[in-house]
Amino acid sequence: MPTKGELPSPDILETFPNPYPKRDYSNKMICEEFTSVCPKTLQPDFGRLSIRYNARDLCVELKSLKLYLQQYRNHGAFYEKLTNDILRDLVNLLTPHWMHIKAEFSSRGGIHSVIEVSYTSSEDDPPELESLESDEDESE
Amino acid sequence: MPTKGELPSPDILETFPNPYPKRDYSNKMICEEFTSVCPKTLQPDFGRLSIRYNARDLCVELKSLKLYLQQYRNHGAFYEKLTNDILRDLVNLLTPHWMHIKAEFSSRGGIHSVIEVSYTSSEDDPPELESLESDEDESE
Amino acid sequence: MPTKGELPSPDILETFPNPYPKRDYSNKMICEEFTSVCPKTLQPDFGRLSIRYNARDLCVELKSLKLYLQQYRNHGAFYEKLTNDILRDLVNLLTPHWMHIKAEFSSRGGIHSVIEVSYTSSEDDPPELESLESDEDESE
Amino acid sequence: MPTKGELPSPDILETFPNPYPKRDYSNKMICEEFTSVCPKTLQPDFGRLSIRYNARDLCVELKSLKLYLQQYRNHGAFYEKLTNDILRDLVNLLTPHWMHIKAEFSSRGGIHSVIEVSYTSSEDDPPELESLESDEDESE
Amino acid sequence: MPTKGELPSPDILETFPNPYPKRDYSNKMICEEFTSVCPKTLQPDFGRLSIRYNARDLCVELKSLKLYLQQYRNHGAFYEKLTNDILRDLVNLLTPHWMHIKAEFSSRGGIHSVIEVSYTSSEDDPPELESLESDEDESE
Amino acid sequence: MPTKGELPSPDILETFPNPYPKRDYSNKMICEEFTSVCPKTLQPDFGRLSIRYNARDLCVELKSLKLYLQQYRNHGAFYEKLTNDILRDLVNLLTPHWMHIKAEFSSRGGIHSVIEVSYTSSEDDPPELESLESDEDESE
Amino acid sequence: MPTKGELPSPDILETFPNPYPKRDYSNKMICEEFTSVCPKTLQPDFGRLSIRYNARDLCVELKSLKLYLQQYRNHGAFYEKLTNDILRDLVNLLTPHWMHIKAEFSSRGGIHSVIEVSYTSSEDDPPELESLESDEDESE
Amino acid sequence: MPTKGELPSPDILETFPNPYPKRDYSNKMICEEFTSVCPKTLQPDFGRLSIRYNARDLCVELKSLKLYLQQYRNHGAFYEKLTNDILRDLVNLLTPHWMHIKAEFSSRGGIHSVIEVSYTSSEDDPPELESLESDEDESE
Amino acid sequence: MPTKGELPSPDILETFPNPYPKRDYSNKMICEEFTSVCPKTLQPDFGRLSIRYNARDLCVELKSLKLYLQQYRNHGAFYEKLTNDILRDLVNLLTPHWMHIKAEFSSRGGIHSVIEVSYTSSEDDPPELESLESDEDESE
Amino acid sequence: MPTKGELPSPDILETFPNPYPKRDYSNKMICEEFTSVCPKTLQPDFGRLSIRYNARDLCVELKSLKLYLQQYRNHGAFYEKLTNDILRDLVNLLTPHWMHIKAEFSSRGGIHSVIEVSYTSSEDDPPELESLESDEDESE
Repeated sequence: MPTKGELPSPDILETFPNPYPKRDYSNKMICEEFTSVCPKTLQPDFGRLSIRYNARDLCVELKSLKLYLQQYRNHGAFYEKLTNDILRDLVNLLTPHWMHIKAEFSSRGGIHSVIEVSYTSSEDDPPELESLESDEDESE
Repeated sequence: MPTKGELPSPDILETFPNPYPKRDYSNKMICEEFTSVCPKTLQPDFGRLSIRYNARDLCVELKSLKLYLQQYRNHGAFYEKLTNDILRDLVNLLTPHWMHIKAEFSSRGGIHSVIEVSYTSSEDDPPELESLESDEDESE
Repeated sequence: MPTKGELPSPDILETFPNPYPKRDYSNKMICEEFTSVCPKTLQPDFGRLSIRYNARDLCVELKSLKLYLQQYRNHGAFYEKLTNDILRDLVNLLTPHWMHIKAEFSSRGGIHSVIEVSYTSSEDDPPELESLESDEDESE
Repeated sequence: MPTKGELPSPDILETFPNPYPKRDYSNKMICEEFTSVCPKTLQPDFGRLSIRYNARDLCVELKSLKLYLQQYRNHGAFYEKLTNDILRDLVNLLTPHWMHIKAEFSSRGGIHSVIEVSYTSSEDDPPELESLESDEDESE
Repeated sequence: MPTKGELPSPDILETFPNPYPKRDYSNKMICEEFTSVCPKTLQPDFGRLSIRYNARDLCVELKSLKLYLQQYRNHGAFYEKLTNDILRDLVNLLTPHWMHIKAEFSSRGGIHSVIEVSYTSSEDDPPELESLESDEDESE
Repeated sequence: MPTKGELPSPDILETFPNPYPKRDYSNKMICEEFTSVCPKTLQPDFGRLSIRYNARDLCVELKSLKLYLQQYRNHGAFYEKLTNDILRDLVNLLTPHWMHIKAEFSSRGGIHSVIEVSYTSSEDDPPELESLESDEDESE
Repeated sequence: MPTKGELPSPDILETFPNPYPKRDYSNKMICEEFTSVCPKTLQPDFGRLSIRYNARDLCVELKSLKLYLQQYRNHGAFYEKLTNDILRDLVNLLTPHWMHIKAEFSSRGGIHSVIEVSYTSSEDDPPELESLESDEDESE
Repeated sequence: MPTKGELPSPDILETFPNPYPKRDYSNKMICEEFTSVCPKTLQPDFGRLSIRYNARDLCVELKSLKLYLQQYRNHGAFYEKLTNDILRDLVNLLTPHWMHIKAEFSSRGGIHSVIEVSYTSSEDDPPELESLESDEDESE
Repeated sequence: MPTKGELPSPDILETFPNPYPKRDYSNKMICEEFTSVCPKTLQPDFGRLSIRYNARDLCVELKSLKLYLQQYRNHGAFYEKLTNDILRDLVNLLTPHWMHIKAEFSSRGGIHSVIEVSYTSSEDDPPELESLESDEDESE
Repeated sequence: MPTKGELPSPDILETFPNPYPKRDYSNKMICEEFTSVCPKTLQPDFGRLSIRYNARDLCVELKSLKLYLQQYRNHGAFYEKLTNDILRDLVNLLTPHWMHIKAEFSSRGGIHSVIEVSYTSSEDDPPELESLESDEDESE
């Protein structure tokens, strides 16, 4: 059974220098094979994650992203929380100009869910990343 | 035969705290298996409901949403009324930043219908929820 | 052969009170089975009509809409004229906040046509419906 | 072999009066069966033409449009030139409020091309149609 | 093994005069058969390139574009770099009003990537093309 | 209202000689725009007819087939009867080696119907066409 | 809660004489809007029923079929049983040459089910319909 | 106007030796861009040709096949005749074990046509190719 | 890391009596959310399992099937072995008339795999189930 | 330029023991990313390879198959030859009960090709693999 202590860790993520930091471009990485565990029923959930960002100085290395997302395989979390957790980890890692994550989960009881979350910064005004920490942590 | 007294009740809906209340994100829940009854012909209607919202402090729990929508199974109501009723119940429950509902009904006599309704609020100016009550109730 | 006297009549259309007149929502009705007659060749034309509107006080009843559209079955009219005629009849009936009609006709000689027309009003400034009358009537 | 003298002529195009000149609506005509000849290789090219416009006083008659487009069957021209030529001919004929042409050509050597061109006018400020003449004519 | 010296060269690209330089139109060229080599694993990558631009005085000749893109067949580069390199080469060649490139790469380890980059200029303010040179060159 | 006397007549059908009577080949003609009238409700029905046959000495001319099928536009008949009637008329006309008709009708009350009927002959043993006459005629 | 006494009854089904009893043809009726109740969880199930048969003397009337299938709306039965029950009722009613039913049920817990059952007879050897009675009745 | 003398000639077709004559395999060549002219209306027809064969000693060279099929561009022939003509020319050229041609033509007046023709031989019993000559030639 | 001792166990599977054991019908259960682990790379694999069978006396209960398949989530096995293992477990459980399993695995390195395996029995000659035991067990 | 000496070698292929050699099952491996070089034009070709076989004692290891197919990346061969070459190499390696290869190549000049080849053996009568050697080798 997944426990709180087994939180996916962003330490596994790696970066490489943005080859064109002065150019305005976006990078979308689509993971068709995301799976996690429902914290209530302990049943597996399946989904599709689209992560799009505009790199500042760093790009995320694809293989390390794959390994990071695999950490959720036996981790129990609500859709709303894990989508925001992933955004938080990647924004902390990359401090991009902006990032958007869309998480589509497969049907449960005839209903499927799609969570979308955005982060936006400006070059001159870097984000206060503290505000990206999980708000839930305090309310718990 | 469905009667007025058998109205679907929002009391069955449950919530949980929004894990990231300071983050701007949306949650879309798509129910492919909605069915109700035509109040004129008493024949069953079938549809697909998309409910998208930006949570303030509360999120709706998915299983309770499923049970709430199942209450319409033997309930007779026009498309226009039931789509707005569902919006009213969920806005009253969640007081979200905004909510959008799209209800697509299957073909009857070669014509199918799509109802779309939106509710928008602002954090500083919470909606007067009275205005969301069914206007029809008075006109009847 | 279709003649001018056999014009489809809006008298067959019926309405019911908008259950949520204070709410901002739209209603799209899609008729996959529209057919009329080409006034030049007297050959049948086939199409798909999407009628979307934002109701003010009245909604159009679906069965009466079906019967209204069936009147075009043996009626001869150019695509441009009949699409606008249907808009005129429905705006006159409903005085909606706005209405949009999209009419897609099947291929003739390797070319198919799509007509789109919009009507917009404002609550404080109801449309002068005379301007919706067929402009062609005068020019003929 | 196609020669310069065999230019498609707009003289074959016919019009009819716009039945609703005071109404704001669009007309899209999609030709799935466009074919021309590559001026370099003399090999046939195939494409799909979408012509959309907002009529002022005149509409183009569909059968004459079909015959006009068939004139390109054995005519040699680059995609960029023929798409703009067709826009020029139709704008000269109809003086519409606006017109948009999208020409999608099938794959050659693993690459296919899509040309899109727009013309916009205003009722009070009719376009100087001279500026629509092929700029290429002078540069040649 | 691909080496730095084997860089794809834009010298192979050819142009022809824009037949309608005064007209505002776009040209999209879609290459379904792009392939390059991963610089880390030396495994082949496959993708789909969409290049859209608004020509100023010059258009790129399609066959030369095909040969230019084939130079990447045995060239090793990260997605982020090669997409930007292609933009740089084509902007240097054409000095278009604007250009947009979308590069979709096939799945690796369950994740596929989409890179999108835009260049915009204005007629009166031609771009300082130096800023389009690879920023990476300096950082290396 | 459609009456018995207005039966579609096969007299409108025309033939031309099979250009390859010694070759074994099939010809499928697909009419996407078939419409008739329900004899019970007098409401229009819509469908898609696929007629496939192996010609002996005669082929059916396409334009005459179109006009023949248009005769059903205001004719009232059950799906089962009209599909078999069309088979009877075309077999009587062509005496093909074999013929197969598939008629797909659009949804009514959530149910759509597909009727398929086959006729097979042999060159040496031509069919007794009397057996193809409507069996219903006697039972009425 | 559905109880055993509320069994769907075939008495609601109506027939009409096969208009072409000597012809070999099939009739497929596809109901996209089938719904029943899971006897274990009492949760609604949704599915798509395809019923295809070769009529002997009788055809089933479509509207009565629709009403018959609606009886399953609040009836609790396993997929395997209700699909076979429907076959039994329709074979008893029509004694067709053959009948095939395919029932596709929507996903539950990531698994969806498709039940297919066939009945075949011969004109000279009518089926012993007793063998079509539910075998389950005895085992219960 | 196309005349009889302008018949497409198989002389343009080229072959190369089958690299695996002892192996049983098939080769399908699909031409999405076939066009010819209707001999009655002189209007262009468009279609999609699938040619599949099992080579004996010779394979058809693809570029020469393309040029052969382009000869039909301005040639007037009925679908039934030209499909069989192409089979005849290719069987005469290749004497394959078998060949199958499927020709799908785009919609005219709401009806589109699909012609399919097969040729079969056996290694020990080569076909009498005379029987493949157009039967029409004699009847004309 | 998955070890040999953690083999998925068929003990979790449950059955219920076939409601129509004398009827010939099939039951297909499609699991879109199968996942296991590659025994070489320890990377997760994803797939879609279709299990179709003709029940003799027993049917497999759907929820227990779901839990049985979830046991492969952290189990390492080659596609060829696990597909055959699942067939063995289900045939041992149900002794069906026949069973077919199709397992489609997602792409790895640009290649995806589809394993299909069938088991057939006859009522009078029940299968020697020993032959269904993994042959691999001996060779290891 | 590809030369004869650079022939793809089957030596790179690896096998593992069939885990269920007594079971009758098939394995399909689909490579979406096959590319080779046209021996005439030296232009790259792109395709999709489906390899399906029924293993006897050996299965092909997926990664080695990927590397084997990558050897064709800069190899020049006609579609007919390379498809048969791959069959020959894999049959020599695996001596399967049967193997089927389908190779779909992308469009060149508006024509795309699909090659299909089968090999069948029997357990008691192993194939004389010599007959699988390229017949072309002698004729050259």
